[in-house]
Amino acid sequence: VAAPIYELYYWPGIQGRGEFVRLALEYAGVPYVDVARRPRGMAAMMKLLERGGGAGLVPFAPPFLKRGDLVIAQTATILAYLGPRHGLVPRDEVSQLRAQQLQLTIADLVAEVHDTHHPIAVSLYYEDQKREARKRSRVFVEERIPKYLGYLERVLDHNGGAHLVGDAFSYVDLSAFQVVVGLEYAFPNAMARLARKIPLLRRLRDQVARQPRIAAYLASERRLPFNEQGIFRHYPELDLRPPRRVVSSRARTRSRSRRPRSGKRT
Amino acid sequence: VAAPIYELYYWPGIQGRGEFVRLALEYAGVPYVDVARRPRGMAAMMKLLERGGGAGLVPFAPPFLKRGDLVIAQTATILAYLGPRHGLVPRDEVSQLRAQQLQLTIADLVAEVHDTHHPIAVSLYYEDQKREARKRSRVFVEERIPKYLGYLERVLDHNGGAHLVGDAFSYVDLSAFQVVVGLEYAFPNAMARLARKIPLLRRLRDQVARQPRIAAYLASERRLPFNEQGIFRHYPELDLRPPRRVVSSRARTRSRSRRPRSGKRT
Repeated sequence: VAAPIYELYYWPGIQGRGEFVRLALEYAGVPYVDVARRPRGMAAMMKLLERGGGAGLVPFAPPFLKRGDLVIAQTATILAYLGPRHGLVPRDEVSQLRAQQLQLTIADLVAEVHDTHHPIAVSLYYEDQKREARKRSRVFVEERIPKYLGYLERVLDHNGGAHLVGDAFSYVDLSAFQVVVGLEYAFPNAMARLARKIPLLRRLRDQVARQPRIAAYLASERRLPFNEQGIFRHYPELDLRPPRRVVSSRARTRSRSRRPRSGKRT
Repeated sequence: VAAPIYELYYWPGIQGRGEFVRLALEYAGVPYVDVARRPRGMAAMMKLLERGGGAGLVPFAPPFLKRGDLVIAQTATILAYLGPRHGLVPRDEVSQLRAQQLQLTIADLVAEVHDTHHPIAVSLYYEDQKREARKRSRVFVEERIPKYLGYLERVLDHNGGAHLVGDAFSYVDLSAFQVVVGLEYAFPNAMARLARKIPLLRRLRDQVARQPRIAAYLASERRLPFNEQGIFRHYPELDLRPPRRVVSSRARTRSRSRRPRSGKRT
């Protein structure tokens, strides 16, 4: 095994925005160190955030990637750097522009997901902005999820159905997988209602999960579980209500005793 | 004069995100058509948003740039495309990564500016989310503006003081100009309080405004004024209160009869 040339810096304990970079590195089979999850890693990360590393630009926030003296921040920029180097995007310029454009649209969606539980301030607790979170989430599940995922579905359709860019997996497909499973974790009812409108996107999610290196990663300790400290949080009060069904009293009892369907398929 | 090879598509009547692209094209002296501000331009834009253009990707939202068959959306991706072609960024890869990283941080700031007046939903009127807008804006002016602009100030300082990337104006400097004048328009009191902490950024703003092509653009009809339909909106109730001063009753009367200092220097 080659020595890792990349150091990834991201908050330990959550998938967050770091996960888009992890999925790309894992799919490409590129060795990397997930620095902040190691002993003394957080101190190293905070130092770089304060002073920068070598000749590199001081990052505004994690995630950032370090390769020797070069420090690259912003998820989409990290992926634009890794893409052509590790077979994660087609080699032509137009495909790479297309990939960046889609990645930035996914980034906009991710920022909106974050703001469903933090609509007022990232510096306040969820509990202190719960009322506003309900209002924002209602619009998010009714309008924004269908708009964003409907757009990705159309792009897939126009591109032959299997990939968002070119005719092989790219970092954009991996990122689309992550937002779909993240939204299924956070908003299972909203996603269940939308399911039949995004068949290509759900197939893409399954295909990504089946890629050998991704399957191995998802089954490993390196894949952190979704949780309520990350971007995709399962707060049932922010999701749609479950669809009404005619159920026997036995089934009703059973379903009450289980957690709500998480939609997490990883 | 060369025939325009670029068509810019953006909502007419506002600077918005389109302005970052306009400033780049104007500084480079590249002829372009601002399609949606022309007769029948909106219809052309809506058609491209629905069906895409030629072989290009269907954009998720304006702004987008069209050159022949190629359609590029997302402000930062448009600038990444224009940058090396028109002398708007140094030619080496590391500088271009650095520029993208900064541009995406500016884009994050712009999204937060938008959400100060639309914290719940872009589909609702400001009046219907005014209460939440006050809460979000309070945190924005107290925490977020100082954090973002303080970061850009540090990057300028580490890079010699005059430019954010390399040793000449880049599209990032133009974008930094735009966010500073936009914030001065929208939040004059908050920006007045911060002024002495961002001397390099204010000097950059002045230097950009003085560049001959930018000065000509800002004085032209092509530069739309800031207004309350755009991203940077001046709602006094969202700004900090003006600083208390000991003033004579005559001065008090005079200052009441004027609009609050807008800080707009364009």
